[in-house]
Amino acid sequence: MKTLLRSETKEIHLDTEGPIVIIGEKINPTGHKKLATAYKDGDFKYVRALASRQIAAGADVLDINVGVPGMDEVAMLPEVVKIVASEVEAPLCLDSANPDVLAAALPLTPGKPLINSVNGEEASLNSLLPIVKDHNAAVIGLTMDDEGIPNDAETRLAIAGKILERAAKLGIPIEDVVIDPLVMAVGADSHAAVVTIRAIQLIRQEFGVNINLGASNVSFGLPERQTINEAFLALAVSAGATCVITDPMKHTLTIRAIDMLLGRDEYATRYIGHYRALAKGSN
Amino acid sequence: MKTLLRSETKEIHLDTEGPIVIIGEKINPTGHKKLATAYKDGDFKYVRALASRQIAAGADVLDINVGVPGMDEVAMLPEVVKIVASEVEAPLCLDSANPDVLAAALPLTPGKPLINSVNGEEASLNSLLPIVKDHNAAVIGLTMDDEGIPNDAETRLAIAGKILERAAKLGIPIEDVVIDPLVMAVGADSHAAVVTIRAIQLIRQEFGVNINLGASNVSFGLPERQTINEAFLALAVSAGATCVITDPMKHTLTIRAIDMLLGRDEYATRYIGHYRALAKGSN
Repeated sequence: MKTLLRSETKEIHLDTEGPIVIIGEKINPTGHKKLATAYKDGDFKYVRALASRQIAAGADVLDINVGVPGMDEVAMLPEVVKIVASEVEAPLCLDSANPDVLAAALPLTPGKPLINSVNGEEASLNSLLPIVKDHNAAVIGLTMDDEGIPNDAETRLAIAGKILERAAKLGIPIEDVVIDPLVMAVGADSHAAVVTIRAIQLIRQEFGVNINLGASNVSFGLPERQTINEAFLALAVSAGATCVITDPMKHTLTIRAIDMLLGRDEYATRYIGHYRALAKGSN
Repeated sequence: MKTLLRSETKEIHLDTEGPIVIIGEKINPTGHKKLATAYKDGDFKYVRALASRQIAAGADVLDINVGVPGMDEVAMLPEVVKIVASEVEAPLCLDSANPDVLAAALPLTPGKPLINSVNGEEASLNSLLPIVKDHNAAVIGLTMDDEGIPNDAETRLAIAGKILERAAKLGIPIEDVVIDPLVMAVGADSHAAVVTIRAIQLIRQEFGVNINLGASNVSFGLPERQTINEAFLALAVSAGATCVITDPMKHTLTIRAIDMLLGRDEYATRYIGHYRALAKGSN
């Protein structure tokens, strides 16, 4: 199954047959003081730098989050969208669960963006899915609902089913809903990753949709997080994940290696190309 | 299914339910000039160091190979076995396909070692399996035969079946045969890893036996081999591999991360323990 995303000039497909699509996560002020300050000061040079740096590092799509406490996000998201869209060609991922913020930004977003995210809560489904439909966008659906994040894979599967059903009722094509089965910290719950991997398998098997993951939560609180995150990426992709929200500066080479090992990189062209770009960048 | 290996004082189980067993590969003179020279000079201090260093780095079992051109392996393997067995407590893996070498070393090997390896060639099956049986050893069976290494997973499955059948006829219990489905360089054949991963799945499904892999062939000829090897380890283990012959100094933390992510490391005890040992070692 293919999920089309578009900027003004560029198309990207999330594809259940691969290769893995990388959504760059760095334009997000959470725990990123320099960016929060840049937003507050209206100084967008740093935003432009984060955008072009992530593309150079292999990102296919850029996530944009403007969630700083006290920020007027309704004014800010359209602003940052315009800036990033003028800097890079990649399709965008609008990172907000606030319908007013999305309604303000979507008319100014070129092409067909991804919205990050709806979830199984009634309020979320009711307020966000109509906006997704109106703007012919694609959307990430998180497998949590009014009861929180389920501890078992089967309930996450059921929530994915609910989101897909509600989207279908509004006429949103199934390929425009990307399910994110969520991963919690394995340091807090030894079975956190097992549940997510099982949920990926079940959702892939049952619905055949594209599956997104944030790769770095899993290692929260543990040392040498990159080692854990990269092992988890390989396990998640082998279970059926097709798209990751991550730091491309850290993880693109591993992602290229996974694609290569899964037979999706004839003559290792993309792997070697990325290696050479890295080697060149470090000179 | 559990494969028991024993030294004089220690038991190790290869277990299809995990955790991953690490066979340290460093006592092997192939491409390792310092060790080849030490063998020739009869200077075994370096062998002792390689043995204890691998155990400290997390190896469960130590592979011993004495294959230097011109070496009298029949005399040498028993010698090195005695030295390693006096240095560390781990069970050993005798790395030779020569029945004379194995017949000389096995009576001097304490406990129940692993033999590396038999394969599907008639000459190999006929000459090695009786020795495995006579010494109640366990054995690695490589999925290649008189026709070479098959390009497809199904033929590797068939060879695994042949090895298991021939072993069974001699009264070798199925759990004492560990199948190694072989991995070739992905840089030379884009589908090399796919075939191996598929073979692991088929062999696991059909026979339920323990499955071993050498993890580093896969990256031969490519840059940043560790990144590729570690992604491959995660993919292979998620397919059903239970045991790896590898360099524990390089890969143990990733192996501990994989076990942790697969729910085999309650409270991340082994992962954090290994991280602390590494941090201590580098002080």
